[in-house]
Amino acid sequence: MRMSEGVEWAVHCCLGIAWAPDDRALPAARLAAYYSLPAPYLNKQLQALTRAGILASTPGPRGGFRLARPLHAITLMDVVCAIEGTDPAFRCTEIRLNTPEGRATVDPGVPCAVDRAMNRAELAWRRELAGQTLADIHASVHPDVIAGARTHFTD
Amino acid sequence: MRMSEGVEWAVHCCLGIAWAPDDRALPAARLAAYYSLPAPYLNKQLQALTRAGILASTPGPRGGFRLARPLHAITLMDVVCAIEGTDPAFRCTEIRLNTPEGRATVDPGVPCAVDRAMNRAELAWRRELAGQTLADIHASVHPDVIAGARTHFTD
Ligand code: FES
Ligand code: FES
Repeated sequence: MRMSEGVEWAVHCCLGIAWAPDDRALPAARLAAYYSLPAPYLNKQLQALTRAGILASTPGPRGGFRLARPLHAITLMDVVCAIEGTDPAFRCTEIRLNTPEGRATVDPGVPCAVDRAMNRAELAWRRELAGQTLADIHASVHPDVIAGARTHFTD
Repeated sequence: MRMSEGVEWAVHCCLGIAWAPDDRALPAARLAAYYSLPAPYLNKQLQALTRAGILASTPGPRGGFRLARPLHAITLMDVVCAIEGTDPAFRCTEIRLNTPEGRATVDPGVPCAVDRAMNRAELAWRRELAGQTLADIHASVHPDVIAGARTHFTD
């Protein structure tokens, strides 16, 4: 089970965008160059963040991506859902119904205990991610990194 | 991010094996027939459970798979790790070091705050799964299902 590396890119790009001066829109190519990432694939992640309402994109020669809401209103869960989708990692295919006794006794309206336990675990994971905002991440970043990004994105 | 369906198969097969009478060894083909699963692929999952010390396999015409330890000593985390491996779902590729200021200021010995938060969330998930044993799952199964499996695996 592996999360796509797009999640790491997406979180760091949201921070880079937040650090651009004067709320300026950043094109995918500039973010890709700044973080040494492949621009076409990064652009897909930025589009996904836009569809999820985390970024706003402006077209045109001076266009690019801005934050659609402040860092404290974006959680790691929001970013993970934007990039990875919202489907649960564990999906029960109801194999308990494949046996004769299963078909005879199981109430399909009551989820299998395995499915319930897997969902409880995923909920614990989601709750942790939902409790962490990009403002919390930002707060742990060295000021020189933030100042450097600001300068970098000024011209 | 998706868990392989082998996890669902593995958990239910451990239960089916536990329900076989007289601690008898079950070949992959019998388990596959009982749960209507493809035998060659199920056999791979059973081998993985054996490598993880959850099952013990005996070769030969009367051979097959037995539990290597009782249901209360097997957690959902054990089964997930046996099938999915133990790598974390989120893997930081250190993109914070790809910028000039990152290289200049970041202490690579201190993990990125994003990585730390992702790991905390995965720990919460693992902790839930480690708190749930197959004996807990067994306890929620209808007695007719258990009796049916026992009869099914008797001859
Ligand atoms: S039947 Fe799907 S997890 Fe049990
Ligand atoms: S550098 Fe990898 S998560 Fe931040």
